[in-house]
Amino acid sequence: MAARVSVDEMNRIMREDVPMAANLGIRFESIEDGRATARLPFREDLLRPGGTVTGPAMMAVADVVMFGAVLSRIGPVNMAVTTSLNANFLRRPKPGDLLADGRLIKCGRRLAYGEVTLVSADAPDDPVCHVTCTYSIPPEEAR
Amino acid sequence: MAARVSVDEMNRIMREDVPMAANLGIRFESIEDGRATARLPFREDLLRPGGTVTGPAMMAVADVVMFGAVLSRIGPVNMAVTTSLNANFLRRPKPGDLLADGRLIKCGRRLAYGEVTLVSADAPDDPVCHVTCTYSIPPEEAR
Amino acid sequence: MAARVSVDEMNRIMREDVPMAANLGIRFESIEDGRATARLPFREDLLRPGGTVTGPAMMAVADVVMFGAVLSRIGPVNMAVTTSLNANFLRRPKPGDLLADGRLIKCGRRLAYGEVTLVSADAPDDPVCHVTCTYSIPPEEAR
Amino acid sequence: MAARVSVDEMNRIMREDVPMAANLGIRFESIEDGRATARLPFREDLLRPGGTVTGPAMMAVADVVMFGAVLSRIGPVNMAVTTSLNANFLRRPKPGDLLADGRLIKCGRRLAYGEVTLVSADAPDDPVCHVTCTYSIPPEEAR
Repeated sequence: MAARVSVDEMNRIMREDVPMAANLGIRFESIEDGRATARLPFREDLLRPGGTVTGPAMMAVADVVMFGAVLSRIGPVNMAVTTSLNANFLRRPKPGDLLADGRLIKCGRRLAYGEVTLVSADAPDDPVCHVTCTYSIPPEEAR
Repeated sequence: MAARVSVDEMNRIMREDVPMAANLGIRFESIEDGRATARLPFREDLLRPGGTVTGPAMMAVADVVMFGAVLSRIGPVNMAVTTSLNANFLRRPKPGDLLADGRLIKCGRRLAYGEVTLVSADAPDDPVCHVTCTYSIPPEEAR
Repeated sequence: MAARVSVDEMNRIMREDVPMAANLGIRFESIEDGRATARLPFREDLLRPGGTVTGPAMMAVADVVMFGAVLSRIGPVNMAVTTSLNANFLRRPKPGDLLADGRLIKCGRRLAYGEVTLVSADAPDDPVCHVTCTYSIPPEEAR
Repeated sequence: MAARVSVDEMNRIMREDVPMAANLGIRFESIEDGRATARLPFREDLLRPGGTVTGPAMMAVADVVMFGAVLSRIGPVNMAVTTSLNANFLRRPKPGDLLADGRLIKCGRRLAYGEVTLVSADAPDDPVCHVTCTYSIPPEEAR
């Protein structure tokens, strides 16, 4: 099945609808049906003590990547909202770009659920953060 | 027991150590032992479609409020880091300031765990988001 | 506001509808609007290595206590189901009865969310486990 | 890398150390390094209203499957304990056996983190529950 949004569309939707994520410099890199990846470029102001990337920046990229994975399935429905997000920080990333890879585990009529794995761009085999996330999908008539 | 950091110290620590939170305009309003509150002032760029405050901004304020609650107990130990954060979004806040109230549920030698409740400043009885959060505390010799 | 189920009704509902919880020996001790407490009596077969009560037994009592808190608000609607449960184990309880205290944080038309704190009956100030839990409430016409 | 426990060993460890799980009839079906699968056989007393399997039974099998995945990596260290478990119930399983498939996402010196997917044995492509779980691993000298 083809994705119902493209990378360019998702980057535009992010700029318009999720400006906080766009302002962090996040950009989508790939979208396919039920899956999306994005990059959080390194910036000094996202560091925490010890030189590690701050948790809220990781949660922001995870949240918007899951938004992309949801829209890849249902199309550009901008009233989809996060209802829960559970982040587990597994190791402290070195300063550097982070990559987030999100996939749907379930996409029903009213709820979508999936997971996002974050890695350092230069150590793709060692997850730094794992997130699960539930999105609420508005009923057809409310879109 | 007296808090081991003051509101002014926490605002300074946030500016130096968690610049992303400081850049969102968050400021601490009260600290006592095991408890901290902060305000996320309203800004247009934190909105999501539908006029509601974006989830990652709520998670960022929850995370730093829990950081304040932890430091209120253990003092200004800047290597404490979040190991997990679980956010539940309960209703869509109207545009406006948000208040976050965090309290420790447990503070052991190596782990702290607590909860943060977020409300709209003009509707303090209706939680918009509830967060639980675990912090890892560095061993004495590593501080 | 008065609770819409009594302790006796909840114990009966548990025996009929949640036999696994009833079989663990759980019994409700108090119900008021938006709040419920229950006891998990000590049993040898609920121990884990090290003499501590097994996590799944704690999650079972938390789940059914939240069910009681939900029904205290909406009445005996037996199609309410858990959609998510997040348990944090804070210390290893000594062998002995556990008490669970659950309260609603939000109860909307379709979703209820709350928290449950578990303590050892003989150390009520030291939480052993903290649980947050979401219940899905069936629409009026489906009850 | 070979698994450091076998299926037979895990079934024995479960009977001795996690009797509640064994009493539910759970049995391990496969173990390899960082991965374990188990079956929860159908039983009438695990049903909830509506004929669906009760959530706590699903959490119990997820918890013990993650225990198996941890021991597959570190060997039979019986003091490993769950520190958090987050369950998302995705659809109501029909009455019937459930299969749980758990894998480690990270296994450090002191913490292991992984995920477990549960399906109905007769509908293996539709997850009914997804669980993430953190285990605390005792230091070498305490095992």
